[in-house]
Amino acid sequence: MNEKLTAFRRLMKERGVDMYIVPTDDFHLSEYTGDYFKCRAFLTGFRGSAGTALVTQEEALLWTDGRYFLAAEEELRGSGFSLMKMGVEGVPTLSEYVQAHLKEGGVLGYDGRTVSAQAGKQFLRIAEEQGARIADGWDLVGEIWTDRPPLSHEAAWILGTEYAGEDSASKIKRVRDAMKALGAKAHVLTSLTDISWLLNLRGGDILYCPVILSYLILTESRCVFYVQSESLTEEIRSYLEQLGVETQPYEAVYEDVSMLEGPVLLDPSCINARLYTLLSGRTGLVEAKNPTILMKAVKNEVEAENFRAAHLKDGIVLTKWLYWFKHTVGKEALTELSCARKLDAMRRAVDTSKGLSFETIAGYGPNGAIVHYEPTEESDTPVEAKGFLLVDSGGHYLEGTTDVTRTIACGPLSEKEKEYFTLVLKGHIDLASAKFLEGARGMNLDYLARAPFWERGLDYRHGTGHGVGYLLSVHESPNGFRWKVVPERNDSAEFLPGMIQSDEPGIYLAGEFGVRTESLLLTVEAEKTEFGQFLAFENLTLCPIDLDAVIPEMLTKEEKAYLNRYHETVYQKLCPFMNEEEAAWLKEATRAL
Amino acid sequence: MNEKLTAFRRLMKERGVDMYIVPTDDFHLSEYTGDYFKCRAFLTGFRGSAGTALVTQEEALLWTDGRYFLAAEEELRGSGFSLMKMGVEGVPTLSEYVQAHLKEGGVLGYDGRTVSAQAGKQFLRIAEEQGARIADGWDLVGEIWTDRPPLSHEAAWILGTEYAGEDSASKIKRVRDAMKALGAKAHVLTSLTDISWLLNLRGGDILYCPVILSYLILTESRCVFYVQSESLTEEIRSYLEQLGVETQPYEAVYEDVSMLEGPVLLDPSCINARLYTLLSGRTGLVEAKNPTILMKAVKNEVEAENFRAAHLKDGIVLTKWLYWFKHTVGKEALTELSCARKLDAMRRAVDTSKGLSFETIAGYGPNGAIVHYEPTEESDTPVEAKGFLLVDSGGHYLEGTTDVTRTIACGPLSEKEKEYFTLVLKGHIDLASAKFLEGARGMNLDYLARAPFWERGLDYRHGTGHGVGYLLSVHESPNGFRWKVVPERNDSAEFLPGMIQSDEPGIYLAGEFGVRTESLLLTVEAEKTEFGQFLAFENLTLCPIDLDAVIPEMLTKEEKAYLNRYHETVYQKLCPFMNEEEAAWLKEATRAL
Repeated sequence: MNEKLTAFRRLMKERGVDMYIVPTDDFHLSEYTGDYFKCRAFLTGFRGSAGTALVTQEEALLWTDGRYFLAAEEELRGSGFSLMKMGVEGVPTLSEYVQAHLKEGGVLGYDGRTVSAQAGKQFLRIAEEQGARIADGWDLVGEIWTDRPPLSHEAAWILGTEYAGEDSASKIKRVRDAMKALGAKAHVLTSLTDISWLLNLRGGDILYCPVILSYLILTESRCVFYVQSESLTEEIRSYLEQLGVETQPYEAVYEDVSMLEGPVLLDPSCINARLYTLLSGRTGLVEAKNPTILMKAVKNEVEAENFRAAHLKDGIVLTKWLYWFKHTVGKEALTELSCARKLDAMRRAVDTSKGLSFETIAGYGPNGAIVHYEPTEESDTPVEAKGFLLVDSGGHYLEGTTDVTRTIACGPLSEKEKEYFTLVLKGHIDLASAKFLEGARGMNLDYLARAPFWERGLDYRHGTGHGVGYLLSVHESPNGFRWKVVPERNDSAEFLPGMIQSDEPGIYLAGEFGVRTESLLLTVEAEKTEFGQFLAFENLTLCPIDLDAVIPEMLTKEEKAYLNRYHETVYQKLCPFMNEEEAAWLKEATRAL
Repeated sequence: MNEKLTAFRRLMKERGVDMYIVPTDDFHLSEYTGDYFKCRAFLTGFRGSAGTALVTQEEALLWTDGRYFLAAEEELRGSGFSLMKMGVEGVPTLSEYVQAHLKEGGVLGYDGRTVSAQAGKQFLRIAEEQGARIADGWDLVGEIWTDRPPLSHEAAWILGTEYAGEDSASKIKRVRDAMKALGAKAHVLTSLTDISWLLNLRGGDILYCPVILSYLILTESRCVFYVQSESLTEEIRSYLEQLGVETQPYEAVYEDVSMLEGPVLLDPSCINARLYTLLSGRTGLVEAKNPTILMKAVKNEVEAENFRAAHLKDGIVLTKWLYWFKHTVGKEALTELSCARKLDAMRRAVDTSKGLSFETIAGYGPNGAIVHYEPTEESDTPVEAKGFLLVDSGGHYLEGTTDVTRTIACGPLSEKEKEYFTLVLKGHIDLASAKFLEGARGMNLDYLARAPFWERGLDYRHGTGHGVGYLLSVHESPNGFRWKVVPERNDSAEFLPGMIQSDEPGIYLAGEFGVRTESLLLTVEAEKTEFGQFLAFENLTLCPIDLDAVIPEMLTKEEKAYLNRYHETVYQKLCPFMNEEEAAWLKEATRAL
């Protein structure tokens, strides 16, 4: 029997906890989390990005989804945990399991800081139905984790208004106006990207997402920033002071929320269950979306212009890398990892680089068909002079964030490879060409990207596009392209000028190859007529789409015209930054069809 | 001062009612209502299909929408009522007005049978906020309406299973299963189309919608039909008895609901406020969509086959009429009304006809641009041998219901007329050609019909399509095509095989002309692949689309192919029923482009 699990069960018994849940989230429901928060991985050994553990005196279970079944079985070996395969028939969900096994008078425990208020509400309902109790105040895994890494507290830094386009005082005023409109006297923010956006601060506490571990409480007269003192330089302290922002220790927020006066605004999908519990006793709780979510999704004109600059820098790097790749593959020994590392190094060398916006995906051949594939030392595959290399990558810059996928012909292609590449390109172009009335959402337009697939009985099992933050998370709500209505995902907001989202249809043939083509689209105003304001998309990404893989006859006149216009722009913008050989190649790579 | 209004205010005073609301609905929230229910028209003089009156001792107001501003001003003259223009800036909504003027301790009255439970909840909330009271038990207009027409009680008749495809016992079982799944012991139905569908009965109590004024309560063991005894023939009584359905007087439902045991299932959007009030005190109220809504929307195979037969009969009539019109316009004096009356008479002469499914719209020239135009003796306009006549019409048959719009070239057309006609045709065809995964909704596909308009900064301000009932209402939820998400409209359900909806984009140039092309689409299965079940649409409507108005160069290859295939089908199906001249003309009218 695993020692950790034995120790953990002993601790549960001491505290009188019958069933304890260990989720994957940090205290802020962040997409990526720091090492301090990897309690579930510590306890179970399973390191995948999604999974929830549950322990009783009799059972130790881990739920995860289909992406991780193989890895989880491997990593759970010897841990004492059994795998619960999510989505497989006959396997109960976590909630169903809790409902069936939590006994009357029993105690269900979890660290309420690592569970969303929404999930917490559900557990509370189940506990009430069973006549059981919730104990959400203990981090029991932390108590047995002796060599736990410390909380990250990298130095925060200021994103100047030449980048942010609006100073923090103005943003705070706008949020206070929104609070007023909602009848709230206070607002509790725990989402790190919202706090960073609001204060025009960035940090380094989460990989790929330059934010600061913190909480923030805004009232009509005060703005209190709960943050580790190590994160604050003298410059930041003085900046915050000038802004009228007080600082308090990171964990002090849990005491302070109880002292708030008047109705409190919070977003149950963005706040942890512990804070929700502390606040939910009061009469005036205003549950609504964080006003910051929509504000930060709508990029202002300075941000939009900066995004164009970021994409120029990123496009230069990626295109130079592409030139190198096209002229090296088949001549030198390349692998997925060596290709990715070269690209990553080139991106990090850009003057205003703030690192990558996510782990680079470089999948060769059949690996391109694994949607969430990231090459590792173990999986690394040689890249040969045939077939496709799928590269999905992006960077953070002071000027904004990029996310781009190009599928590259490494040499001769089969007709099937070209046909599927061209299908993906049709979907990509048809969506990028959309013109629509204000009020339209992603779910109205997603069909445009899927039609070429659906016509042939094909599909891809991921969203067509996600919102993109400004030097924040590369995946940002509430805008995006998705056809199925999933209200709690909050990713099908009405498009507004200034919103940026990815356009990334793909096709994945298991064991054969994968194709995806992705650019970022800025929502812009088209004409205004008696019928209203029309909107359209400006393609921000600047990198050739591999014409070696295109079957021109499969494109409509309009699709060809779009592609030719796009390539003309790519050439005009990038050419001044290419050397002679690169420029000659780029001219050919962006030729009109 | 108007006598009616004076008498009404006197009555309000006697009863201690400070503010009284008179809506347009009958007791069943029907789309069309019988003469008995026209209280608002009686009190105010305004006869439009939408409007709500409100009376206090000081004010008498009528709210209606933009379609009726002109008519309402005319008809309200001398009534003592002032017009409240809905949607015009500065004009409060009915709720806002009530909120602002209902005083503490005041009494807000209305006949709760004519208000939806949803609206009733809203009035109750306002009253509670103001410290006022609701009196929803009096039909005060009825008390002063001395020459009120009687409640309709036309004889009911049985729709045999050769038409309905499923007997009533089987339907009742399915609804009971749904009740069980929802944990309900009883279910109260007030929607007339749901009741008619469930019992396989039809009647004649509402114009254009062959239903029976009635209520129905279903429990695990009983099925009670509340209906006027005049509606029941001996045959119907014996049919109901065999089915195990008890009958009770129409109004007895208001007493019986109080005696129901166990949780009661009801649909707050389909039940009136009085019944809701009577039921809302109890603990077990299950608020959910009526299970019958989805069941009746999904036509079974017999119904689908019948719909094809209905469309053949309807197509023969409409096409023969079209032949007559094309050969008569410019030779004989025609008007909108004379054209409509001829078509109506031809439809009514079909062997299995059950009347029209709605009032025929025949709009010539600029009248075609008025979306809800129906010609009257006053508006009737001569039809000349140029420009467009827009004809939107449909019939009820034992085999189903039709709804078709054709815009007809009466002679030479301008380039602009042809261009807009072709745009509408493109949208119509692009939507009809859609292929999509099960799970898609109208809001995913609506863009297909609008894209040709939106590309040019144009739009039409109505939904692209609505569900169609089987010898019930021609407008049926929950399926349809709409791009804006309006949750309470309940018209963007996931498409399922067997659902029928209209495809009717249009364009309306005020003062010039209007174009609309409408066919009914049956949702059918396409192939099933590893990605799921794909669906597509089968075009049911059989009537040529006027090629005299098409600019072929504006159509894509795929659009042309669709149109040619459609016309080939129209010719093949209709030709056997045409005389020699008609057949020769039809051949030409359905020629391939």
